[in-house]
Amino acid sequence: MYNAPISDMLFVMKELAGLDEIAALPGGEDVTPETVQAVLQECAKLCEEVLAPLNVEGDRNPSRWENGQVHTSPGFADAFRQYVAGGWQGVQHPQEYEGQGLPKLVGTPCVEMLNAANLSFALCPLLSDGAIEALLTAGSEEQKKRFVPKLISGEWTGTMNLTEPQAGSDLAAVRTRAEPQADGSYKLFGTKIFITWGEHDMAENIVHLVLARTPTAPEGVKGISLFIVPKFLVNDDGSPGMRNDVHCVSIEHKLGIKASPTAVLQYGDYGGAVGQLIGEENRGLEYMFIMMNAARFAVGMQGVAISERAYQKAAAYAKERVQSRPVDGSSKAAVTIIHHPDVRRMLSTMRALTEAARALAYVAAGESDRAHRHPDEAVRAQHQARYEYLVPIVKGWSTELAIDVASLGVQVHGGMGFIEETGAAQFYRDARILAIYEGTTAIQANDLIGRKTLRDGGAAAQVLIDEIGQTVAELGTHEGAAFKSMAKHLALGQQALASAVGFVLANAKRDPNAVFAGSVPYLKLAGVVLGGWQMARAMLASQRLMQDDPKFHGAKIATAQCFAVHVLPQAVALEAAIVSANGAEGMLALSEDQF
Amino acid sequence: MYNAPISDMLFVMKELAGLDEIAALPGGEDVTPETVQAVLQECAKLCEEVLAPLNVEGDRNPSRWENGQVHTSPGFADAFRQYVAGGWQGVQHPQEYEGQGLPKLVGTPCVEMLNAANLSFALCPLLSDGAIEALLTAGSEEQKKRFVPKLISGEWTGTMNLTEPQAGSDLAAVRTRAEPQADGSYKLFGTKIFITWGEHDMAENIVHLVLARTPTAPEGVKGISLFIVPKFLVNDDGSPGMRNDVHCVSIEHKLGIKASPTAVLQYGDYGGAVGQLIGEENRGLEYMFIMMNAARFAVGMQGVAISERAYQKAAAYAKERVQSRPVDGSSKAAVTIIHHPDVRRMLSTMRALTEAARALAYVAAGESDRAHRHPDEAVRAQHQARYEYLVPIVKGWSTELAIDVASLGVQVHGGMGFIEETGAAQFYRDARILAIYEGTTAIQANDLIGRKTLRDGGAAAQVLIDEIGQTVAELGTHEGAAFKSMAKHLALGQQALASAVGFVLANAKRDPNAVFAGSVPYLKLAGVVLGGWQMARAMLASQRLMQDDPKFHGAKIATAQCFAVHVLPQAVALEAAIVSANGAEGMLALSEDQF
Repeated sequence: MYNAPISDMLFVMKELAGLDEIAALPGGEDVTPETVQAVLQECAKLCEEVLAPLNVEGDRNPSRWENGQVHTSPGFADAFRQYVAGGWQGVQHPQEYEGQGLPKLVGTPCVEMLNAANLSFALCPLLSDGAIEALLTAGSEEQKKRFVPKLISGEWTGTMNLTEPQAGSDLAAVRTRAEPQADGSYKLFGTKIFITWGEHDMAENIVHLVLARTPTAPEGVKGISLFIVPKFLVNDDGSPGMRNDVHCVSIEHKLGIKASPTAVLQYGDYGGAVGQLIGEENRGLEYMFIMMNAARFAVGMQGVAISERAYQKAAAYAKERVQSRPVDGSSKAAVTIIHHPDVRRMLSTMRALTEAARALAYVAAGESDRAHRHPDEAVRAQHQARYEYLVPIVKGWSTELAIDVASLGVQVHGGMGFIEETGAAQFYRDARILAIYEGTTAIQANDLIGRKTLRDGGAAAQVLIDEIGQTVAELGTHEGAAFKSMAKHLALGQQALASAVGFVLANAKRDPNAVFAGSVPYLKLAGVVLGGWQMARAMLASQRLMQDDPKFHGAKIATAQCFAVHVLPQAVALEAAIVSANGAEGMLALSEDQF
Repeated sequence: MYNAPISDMLFVMKELAGLDEIAALPGGEDVTPETVQAVLQECAKLCEEVLAPLNVEGDRNPSRWENGQVHTSPGFADAFRQYVAGGWQGVQHPQEYEGQGLPKLVGTPCVEMLNAANLSFALCPLLSDGAIEALLTAGSEEQKKRFVPKLISGEWTGTMNLTEPQAGSDLAAVRTRAEPQADGSYKLFGTKIFITWGEHDMAENIVHLVLARTPTAPEGVKGISLFIVPKFLVNDDGSPGMRNDVHCVSIEHKLGIKASPTAVLQYGDYGGAVGQLIGEENRGLEYMFIMMNAARFAVGMQGVAISERAYQKAAAYAKERVQSRPVDGSSKAAVTIIHHPDVRRMLSTMRALTEAARALAYVAAGESDRAHRHPDEAVRAQHQARYEYLVPIVKGWSTELAIDVASLGVQVHGGMGFIEETGAAQFYRDARILAIYEGTTAIQANDLIGRKTLRDGGAAAQVLIDEIGQTVAELGTHEGAAFKSMAKHLALGQQALASAVGFVLANAKRDPNAVFAGSVPYLKLAGVVLGGWQMARAMLASQRLMQDDPKFHGAKIATAQCFAVHVLPQAVALEAAIVSANGAEGMLALSEDQF
C-alpha cells in the first residue's frame, strides 16, 4: 500500500519552491495549477495501483541471470510498458524529442512517487534519464535524433558504465580501452561492474554510456572519453540490428533492490564492442558529471521516497496494532500503539525528516528550473550556484536519513519488523544502497567542500546562511511554543553552519585532513539546518494558510516543532565534531597497525 | 575472520571494572590473573577457529523446518558439541551444578566472543543461561537437580516462552492456559511465537520455560505463572522419555540471524503439554524478570560483539582496498582507503563506540559481581542498584549503536558492502534484531525511567553523575588536546545527564507523556555520557600505563579523543529533545488521523 502524499507535494511546490514563479518563466506556459494537479494525480494512480504492488514481488523474486540473459521479476516488463505508454519517461525532457518539457519541479514529485512505489523498478527510468541528459548535453544532432526519442518512448533504456573492478569511485583508474576504427567508430574492450539495469528483458535495446580511454589519452581523469555502445547496433532506419559485443556475465546477489539487475558487463570478448564517441575526446568525465548530477539529485529523491513509504507503513501498523495500556493511565485497556509516546516520537521523527528532506529537494529542483529558464543570465548563474551547492546535500543527507527512517520503521513494528513477510525490513535493506551508489556520502561531502564551498569562497553558503537569518527573524514575530522552539534551534543551527563553513574556508589549505575528516559531519549539518529552515518556512506558510485546511496545516506546524526539538539540535553536536581539529587529530594519530 | 580483542578485554576488566577487587571477594579464590587469561585465550580459540567460520554458512543455509522438525545449519550441531564439551555453558554457573562458578566479569568477555563469532549460534547458549538462572532462582531442589546439570552440560538446551500472537511485549495479555492435574503437574494449552531456538536438532531435549495462566489466576501481569515444559518428559533416571505435547508448527523467515530458528510453538493440540510449576503460582513475571535481566545484559553484549566484528571486517578491508589519491596530496598514487579522512572517521567512530560500549558493559558486570559476592549487605545493595540502573542502558544503547556501527561497516566497504558475498551486510541485517528482542529500546527506556530512576528518586543516577564529576576534575589535571577535549565534552555531558534526570523526576507525575516521549533520548543520553565516562577513565589509565605498551595505550587515548569530539556532543542535542516539553507537545498535538 502506498498513497502518494499529493497534498504535501503541492504545498511544498507552491509555498516553498515557488511553483507560480517558475510557471511564469519562459517555457512555463503549460504549467497551470490544473495541469500540475492532473500530472500528479495520474502519476499517483500508476504508482499506487501498478508499481507499488510489485515492490514486494520483486524482492521475493529477484531478477535472474541465465546464460547471459536476465529475466526480470514477474510483472515488471508489463509495468514498464504501462509506464512508458503514459509518457512518464519524458516528463522533464524536451518536447522536441517527444518529451513533455515540464519543469524539474513538476517532474520531481513524479520521481518521488515512482521510487516510493518501487525503488528497484524506478532505477531503470532513472538511468534512462541520465543517458538522455548526457546525450542532450554532449551528443551530436544525429546521436540525439537516433537515441533520445527511443529512450523517451521506452522502446530502449539507458545505462551508465563507470565502475570497474579495480576502480570503484576512482575514475582516474578506469582501464576500459576504446580503439578508433577507420569508419570513425571505436571498438571497446574491458569490464564494467555494478551496472544498474545493465541487462534485462523489458525493452528491445539497451543504450550503454561507457567511460573508456582512447590509445592516445593522457593518464588519470583527463584521459577519459564517453562512448555510446548499444546492445544492438542501430540500423539506418533506426531499428535494432546486429548484437553488439557487450555481454552480461553475471548479476550481483544484493542486500536489497533485488529486482533491479546489477550487471557485470564484458566488452569486447568477441572482437570489440562497437561504440561511438560522444562529444569530444577526453571530456567524458565532464559529460558524465552532468549525467551524475541529475542522477545524484534523483538518488536524493529516492531517499525521500523510501522514507515516505517506510513512514506510511509504520503509521498504518501503529494505528492498527493493539498493545499495552497507555503510560498516562488514561485507559485500563490496551490501546493501539500510536498512543504510546515513544511510538509517537518515532513516527513524528520519521515524518519530520521525510518532510524536511522533501522540502529541501523540491526547493533545489526549483533552483534548477530558474537556472535553466530565467531570462537573465546573472540570475541563472546565481540559481545554478545554489542548485549545485544543494545537490550533494540532497543526495547525501536524504539518503543517510532514509536509512535511519527505514530503521525506525522496523522498530515501530517491533518483532514483526524483523520478519520478512511484514515488508518493513525490505525498506531497511533497500535504503542501504542509497548512501553508496552515485557517489558515497563521503564523495558527496568532498564535492560539497571542494567544488561547492571552497571554489566560490563560501559565497553560495553565505547567501543561504543570511536567508536563514531572515527566517529566524520572521519566526520571532510569532507567538507560541512551536515558533519559539523553531526560532531558538534554527538560530543555533544557523550559527553552527556559519561556524562550520568558516572552519572549512580557514583550514582547507593548511590542514586538509582535518577539514575532510569533518566533511560528512559538515554535509549532515548543512542538511539538518537547511532542512530545518524549510520546515520553518513551512510553518510560517501554514500559519498564514491555516484556515484553508486546519488539519493539514496544524499537522505541518506540529511536525516542524518536532523537527526543531528532535532534529535541529544535532547541528550543534555536528559543529563540535567539525570545528574541533582535535577530532581529526585523534583519528589521524592512529597508525595503520593500531586499527 | 575474527580476532578476539583480548588486550582490550583484559584492560577493561582490570583497569575499569575492578577485576582484582572482585577476585578478592569471597568465592574468587580461583580468579587468578593466569586463570583469567587462560579462560579468555581458550574461549578465543574456539570462537575464532570453530564458530566464526560458521557464521556466513549459517546465513547462507538458514535452519529449515520440515514436518515439525528443525534442521539446523550445517556444522552447528558439531560446533555445539565442542562448545559444551569445553565447559563453556557453565562458566558463570555454580560449581554445585557442574558449572565453573566464575564471576560475571570473567564470563562476560566469553559471551562477547561467542556472539561476535556467531550471533545465531550464541543465542542457543544464551537462552540456556536464562533458563538456568530462572531455575536456580525459583526452582525446587528437585527441579534444579533434574534440569540444571543437563543444561550446563549442553545435553539439553533451554528456551524462554513469553510472546503470543496477540500479546507481543504486553505480558498482561498472555492467554496460554495451565490446567492443574491430580498428580500436581499441569497441562498447558496455547500458542507461543518468536521462540528463539524453540526447536532444533543440536541436543537431545529442550527445556521450555513458559508463561501461562492457571484457571484461578487474576487478570493482567499478576496472574502469570512460570512452567517448565520439556520437549521430552524426563524419566525418573533423568533420561528423556515420552514426547511432550509441544510442537513447532513453523519457523520465521527473518531479516537476519537466519541460522537461529525462531519457532512458533503449539502447546496442547494433542491433549495438553505436561508442565511443572516453577516457584509459586502467579509469581511468574517476577521470575521471568530475573531471567530477562540476565538476557538483557547478554543482548547488550551482543551489541558490543557485532560492533567489534563489523569494525574488524571494515578495518581489514580499509587496509587492503586501494583507491584514489590522498586529499592532502601526499601521494601521486592511489592509496589504501584507510588513508582517507572520512574512512578514518568511520573506523574511529566504530571503534570508539565499540570500546565505550564494551567498557560500560563490563563495568556493569563487575557491579553484578559485587552485588552478589560482597560480604556487606549494604554494599551489595548499592552495587545491585547501580547494576540495575545500567542494565537497560547496556541493553538499549549498545544495541542501537550496533545498528549504526554495522551500517558504517557497510559504508566503509562502498558498493562491495551491498553485495551479500562480502559479508558486511550480514552484520547490518543481524544487528537489527538486537534493539527489538528481549524488550525493545522503548521498553528498556521505560524501565530506566520507571523502575530505575523514579523509584529511588534518582539516587542511583545521582551517584553516577557525582562520580563523573570527579573524573572531569581528574582530567583537568592533565595536559594535551585529548584530555582537554574529553574534559570539556564530558563536563557538558554530565550537565546534560543531570538536567535530563531532573526533568524526569520533576515531570513524571505531572506530564507522563512528555517524559516518556523523551525516554529513548534519555536512555541514549545516559549511554553516551556513561560510555564517554568509561573512555575518560580509560584514557587516564592508559596515560598512567603508557610505558607498558605505547601502541595499545596510545591508541586508547586517541580513540577516547574521537569519542569526546564525535560522540559525546550528542548528549547536548539529546538533552534538548528531552527537557523540552515542546518536543512532546508537537508529536502529541497530532491526532491519529493526521499521521
